Amino acid sequence: MSDVRKGQVTIPSDQDFFDATKTLIDKWGADAIRDSDGTKLDPELKTLSMKFYSTYFVARGHNEFAASHPAAVQQLYLMSERVVAYTPTLTIGLMAGYYDQQIQPNWRDNPKTYWEVIDRTTGMVVKPADWTVDEASQSVQLSAAIPFHEYTVSFLADMLWDPTEMYNHLTNNWGDKPHDIPFDVRDPAARDFIQSYLKQWLKANPEIDVVRFTTFFYHFTLVFDQHAREKFVDWLGYGGTVSVAALKAFEQIKGYRLRPEDFVDAGFYNSTFRPPTQRYLDYIDFVQRFVTDQAKILVAMVHSADKEAMMFLGDNWIGAEPYGPYFKEIGLDAVVGSVGSGMTLRLIADIPGVKYTEGRFLPYFFPDVFRPGNDPVIEARANWLTARRALMRKPLDRIGYGGYLKLAAQFPHFVDYVAHVTDEFRDISDKIADTIPYSSLKVAVLNGWGKLRSWQSFIVAHGKRYEQTYSYEGVLEALAGQPVDVMFLSFNDILATGIPADVDVMINVGSVGTAFSGGDIWQEPRLVTLIRQWVAAGHGFIGIGEPTATAQPYQGRRFQLADVLGVDQELAFSLSTDRYWDQPMGENIAWITKDLTLDFGTGTPNLIAVADAQYLRYGREQLRMTVKDYGAGRGVYIAGLPYTLDNARLLLRAMHYAAHKESILMQNYATNPNVEVHVYPGKGLYAVLNNTHDKQNSELFLNGKHTVVELEPDEIRWEREPQ
Amino acid sequence: MSDVRKGQVTIPSDQDFFDATKTLIDKWGADAIRDSDGTKLDPELKTLSMKFYSTYFVARGHNEFAASHPAAVQQLYLMSERVVAYTPTLTIGLMAGYYDQQIQPNWRDNPKTYWEVIDRTTGMVVKPADWTVDEASQSVQLSAAIPFHEYTVSFLADMLWDPTEMYNHLTNNWGDKPHDIPFDVRDPAARDFIQSYLKQWLKANPEIDVVRFTTFFYHFTLVFDQHAREKFVDWLGYGGTVSVAALKAFEQIKGYRLRPEDFVDAGFYNSTFRPPTQRYLDYIDFVQRFVTDQAKILVAMVHSADKEAMMFLGDNWIGAEPYGPYFKEIGLDAVVGSVGSGMTLRLIADIPGVKYTEGRFLPYFFPDVFRPGNDPVIEARANWLTARRALMRKPLDRIGYGGYLKLAAQFPHFVDYVAHVTDEFRDISDKIADTIPYSSLKVAVLNGWGKLRSWQSFIVAHGKRYEQTYSYEGVLEALAGQPVDVMFLSFNDILATGIPADVDVMINVGSVGTAFSGGDIWQEPRLVTLIRQWVAAGHGFIGIGEPTATAQPYQGRRFQLADVLGVDQELAFSLSTDRYWDQPMGENIAWITKDLTLDFGTGTPNLIAVADAQYLRYGREQLRMTVKDYGAGRGVYIAGLPYTLDNARLLLRAMHYAAHKESILMQNYATNPNVEVHVYPGKGLYAVLNNTHDKQNSELFLNGKHTVVELEPDEIRWEREPQ
Repeated sequence: MSDVRKGQVTIPSDQDFFDATKTLIDKWGADAIRDSDGTKLDPELKTLSMKFYSTYFVARGHNEFAASHPAAVQQLYLMSERVVAYTPTLTIGLMAGYYDQQIQPNWRDNPKTYWEVIDRTTGMVVKPADWTVDEASQSVQLSAAIPFHEYTVSFLADMLWDPTEMYNHLTNNWGDKPHDIPFDVRDPAARDFIQSYLKQWLKANPEIDVVRFTTFFYHFTLVFDQHAREKFVDWLGYGGTVSVAALKAFEQIKGYRLRPEDFVDAGFYNSTFRPPTQRYLDYIDFVQRFVTDQAKILVAMVHSADKEAMMFLGDNWIGAEPYGPYFKEIGLDAVVGSVGSGMTLRLIADIPGVKYTEGRFLPYFFPDVFRPGNDPVIEARANWLTARRALMRKPLDRIGYGGYLKLAAQFPHFVDYVAHVTDEFRDISDKIADTIPYSSLKVAVLNGWGKLRSWQSFIVAHGKRYEQTYSYEGVLEALAGQPVDVMFLSFNDILATGIPADVDVMINVGSVGTAFSGGDIWQEPRLVTLIRQWVAAGHGFIGIGEPTATAQPYQGRRFQLADVLGVDQELAFSLSTDRYWDQPMGENIAWITKDLTLDFGTGTPNLIAVADAQYLRYGREQLRMTVKDYGAGRGVYIAGLPYTLDNARLLLRAMHYAAHKESILMQNYATNPNVEVHVYPGKGLYAVLNNTHDKQNSELFLNGKHTVVELEPDEIRWEREPQ
Repeated sequence: MSDVRKGQVTIPSDQDFFDATKTLIDKWGADAIRDSDGTKLDPELKTLSMKFYSTYFVARGHNEFAASHPAAVQQLYLMSERVVAYTPTLTIGLMAGYYDQQIQPNWRDNPKTYWEVIDRTTGMVVKPADWTVDEASQSVQLSAAIPFHEYTVSFLADMLWDPTEMYNHLTNNWGDKPHDIPFDVRDPAARDFIQSYLKQWLKANPEIDVVRFTTFFYHFTLVFDQHAREKFVDWLGYGGTVSVAALKAFEQIKGYRLRPEDFVDAGFYNSTFRPPTQRYLDYIDFVQRFVTDQAKILVAMVHSADKEAMMFLGDNWIGAEPYGPYFKEIGLDAVVGSVGSGMTLRLIADIPGVKYTEGRFLPYFFPDVFRPGNDPVIEARANWLTARRALMRKPLDRIGYGGYLKLAAQFPHFVDYVAHVTDEFRDISDKIADTIPYSSLKVAVLNGWGKLRSWQSFIVAHGKRYEQTYSYEGVLEALAGQPVDVMFLSFNDILATGIPADVDVMINVGSVGTAFSGGDIWQEPRLVTLIRQWVAAGHGFIGIGEPTATAQPYQGRRFQLADVLGVDQELAFSLSTDRYWDQPMGENIAWITKDLTLDFGTGTPNLIAVADAQYLRYGREQLRMTVKDYGAGRGVYIAGLPYTLDNARLLLRAMHYAAHKESILMQNYATNPNVEVHVYPGKGLYAVLNNTHDKQNSELFLNGKHTVVELEPDEIRWEREPQ
């Protein structure tokens, strides 16, 4: 690491911390300083030749405005608890399970018009004439309920407290600091306020170089319960974008009217796991169009003030999804987001239509990690090695850190490690930022969301691990750092325009009925026919978990492409059919799994091999993998794939096997799964990565030439192309 | 065991084994001798004052008739393999995967009328004009197949070999012994033959006392594959009852025509796990009516010959289901069946409408168990203790053994053990055969089959254990020997006539979508309303596994009675909703599970507690039980319940808890779960059973009076009612 170049690094700072900050700027080669929610910068810092970022909140933090414009408050549709009627008279309390400091029913807009009472036992909407509201008790009364039916009320609610500010407020005990009331840019007064306030702010802050929008107008769906605990969280949820004005505008633009149930969705609130309905897709499009139009006004103002506009990827980002069709129009210079994995790095780094991307690395400088006796280097090292794999495929333009710099400075070993990271980052960036890495094949991840939610499959709350998703998320994490091109396709995409000609392998991964596996769209004959034909023509199809599955078996199959994958799932109905597990592991599976220690995670129960597939049984003798020839193509099935280095290698080999590209894989390859090879033909360079904290030896094939390598812990070794 | 009374015991015998048989008759107190498939009795036996049973095959074993009446052969509908079309021309071989010595396509009846080619990608039937048949190659040709659609042919096939005879033939290497061709009583010639042959046989066999029908006309569905291995087995399947004559008769009687798909059912063949369609229920009724009419003719002939008619419960028993509505009309004297468990004992012992029941105990005298170095007492003891619990509730009238008596006689320790069993059986029978045991509550098992398949839930092949069923079957096994009245109710029963007034607790147990859990019938508002109302009025509802579940969530719930049970199942859609596992185990669950070691089997994944239920997490911290008050009643949920003595106790406590009958349970109770108490008020007797092979101590409550007991291994202790 002889490189001494500086730059591409953003750090936070603190008040009364000027000299120490200067030292760290030097050590880490930082060229930008950011503030954070709750920190103020030392005025002396402004004397340095650095870029300055300022966090900017568009639609909160102005309670003087919000309080005087109560109708401009942000809103969402909520479902009451489910209440069983014991008699025809039934009272449903709206606020049961909600936090009254965050949520209040909207009594301004006529409940009879904008609310819905639903009989959840029949699915029928109760006639408005059959219920009344009582504002004093915050409840709805039914007069002709059917005994022992369950009822819910879907009501429009005001959101009186920005959820992120609320979380920070409660977590940091900010006491009687007023609650940030979020206001809705769709309200004309709010729109005027937002624009005029920014105008004035830009004038008042000439020293700021980068306006870091945190974020724009609408928070992802985040609702708290009566104990002020998180109750519902969907990082991708559009719940908080609704209002009477939005409903009216939608009707005018899209030509039909949405119902409360289109938002409430029986209590699932259009979770990203739900196969999106056309109505919800229409609504997303409608909000994206509107947010784009409003955001681009603000960005233009920033540019007019000779500043850059940066968007934080999170919090109030709804409607500004970076892979959406209108995003580029906003005209942002940059997007910054938190890097917790290779997958989240790619989510940021791959964003099209911006000048640069920045990743905030872990750990955040907070007392939970930076406490006496703890070694923050452990998390930093894991974070860097996980993210570095992905960086080798698509480098971020900048990296950074957040939190309290004073805390981090107390850990000299950590300060040194960050110096190593920033130097290594710049070195990688210098070598490969302007070149295209070699890919041995092109992979399409096929699900209900496609490109819009690139690298975002299975996310509930950013960075949290879920028992029901980790066995699927591993697929994206593996792909994030592999020498393959990755694209995301939706079912609608391929039904509309077919499978792109350059795709070698498609992957369908997820659990039955979800947007990621697909749900009942697999009963669409055109879909299965298209894929069968494409596979038979010589391509590869990989299913993981419950791919191509319908909740009910359809025409005798649960996996609708069982014929391609060589596997189906029993639902007890087929127990009468005998299964014979008398085949040895097939040679094709042996090739794919060679020398790997496999972990199928939560796996998938009750699998059966069909159509003469080769199969692998593992663990409690359950079926875990199948491979199958299908025409000139191949199907591969894997029961689950949590992220491990061995599992990543399993996927890489499976993809090359499925695509009939085994020999191409072996051209540039490390036999040790802890070691990965990346090739940069434009530079004549190879990178050999040790992805572990231990020494690793490996046989190596570079340009087909065999050699061996011994790598230090964490090492990245650059090699010139062998002749 | 001072009783020296003989009787109520049937044994097999052998040729050249007269004296040894006499000794065993004496030792075991046998009063009846049976032959078996493959054994011949010693003529001298006939001199003894015993009853003689003769196995009698009605519809096979007469190849001279069968060969001369090829159209009378038994038939079934089969589905070809699923074949993908690569081009519009597609050939589907009918015999792929079938055993040509068992199965041949029926070319006599016009395929264009009686077969169906189905596009399994669309579910559409292909027009007969678009396919042709080729008898020489046993195949069907499509001329206008849609490329990359999957097709199947449903064809009518002849069954050329009785499946049970085939199994015995292949297993015992009977070589070139001709294959028994089954013929169909629906054919007028076959009917005449069957009746006239029986008439002649009855005359020719005056020494036979009991005609043991093995069985009547139609074998349960049992098909073999191209390697002569079992391919499809459904002990309850009506697949082998069909023919053109049957189809025509059905249409005349029921007023509509069945399709091949009504039998083939996309390859599931109406497995007992499928929620029965009305068409299949109609067909079952139609076959039962016909079989009853034909069987009662034969039984009347037996009676005219002054013999008894006994039916073997199995093999060719289809249409003569003992819990069916017409069964009693057959006029049988007895039913005999194999006892592998408490559940199968009750299946036989509870049969209504016969003079006596007989259970064949294990082990069967075959060389697999009776081999040098093996101790057959191990299996005999386990079998007896498992069955004895159930016998205490509803005694069989007779017990017996089968196989080669010569083999058993070589194991003197086993001979002694059977003497113990037969004596203990007669002692129990003497004490309780004519009295009604005390029941502390009445339990109804609620599923799609109801009374028709009493004690037959989850059976695929008689006596086999399946990974997907053992966690549910344990419920019936537990109930079989518990001091509760058990009845079986179908959804249609309670929709038609409500829940019987004397039921205290209903149990719904099984996996989602099956006949046992129920499937989509749970979307019927009347069903859930009826049960909610009933529970709220003070009754108990117990769900085990995936009770009340629909494959797709309906109105936000997967378990449609989640409100009663306090539990629902996640399908990823609700991951956005936070779950807080911060409650300690509730006192109600603590009461139910007191001192028990629990085993939830395969359990049920992704459960969530709802509606303020008390819950239990167990094992890998998964939710495993909930209890909930519901009006004046209670719901209890258990994730799975394989049969163990502790689990049986768990169920017993849960039922009494659900029914608010905790104090009644404790009136007659052993605190040690290995010990069970039965009360016979009419006799003033208590039986205290040690269900294990170890000594057991227990506190005991008899008539509410506390005492302690120490029991020898396997002991049954009789006590007079304490005053």
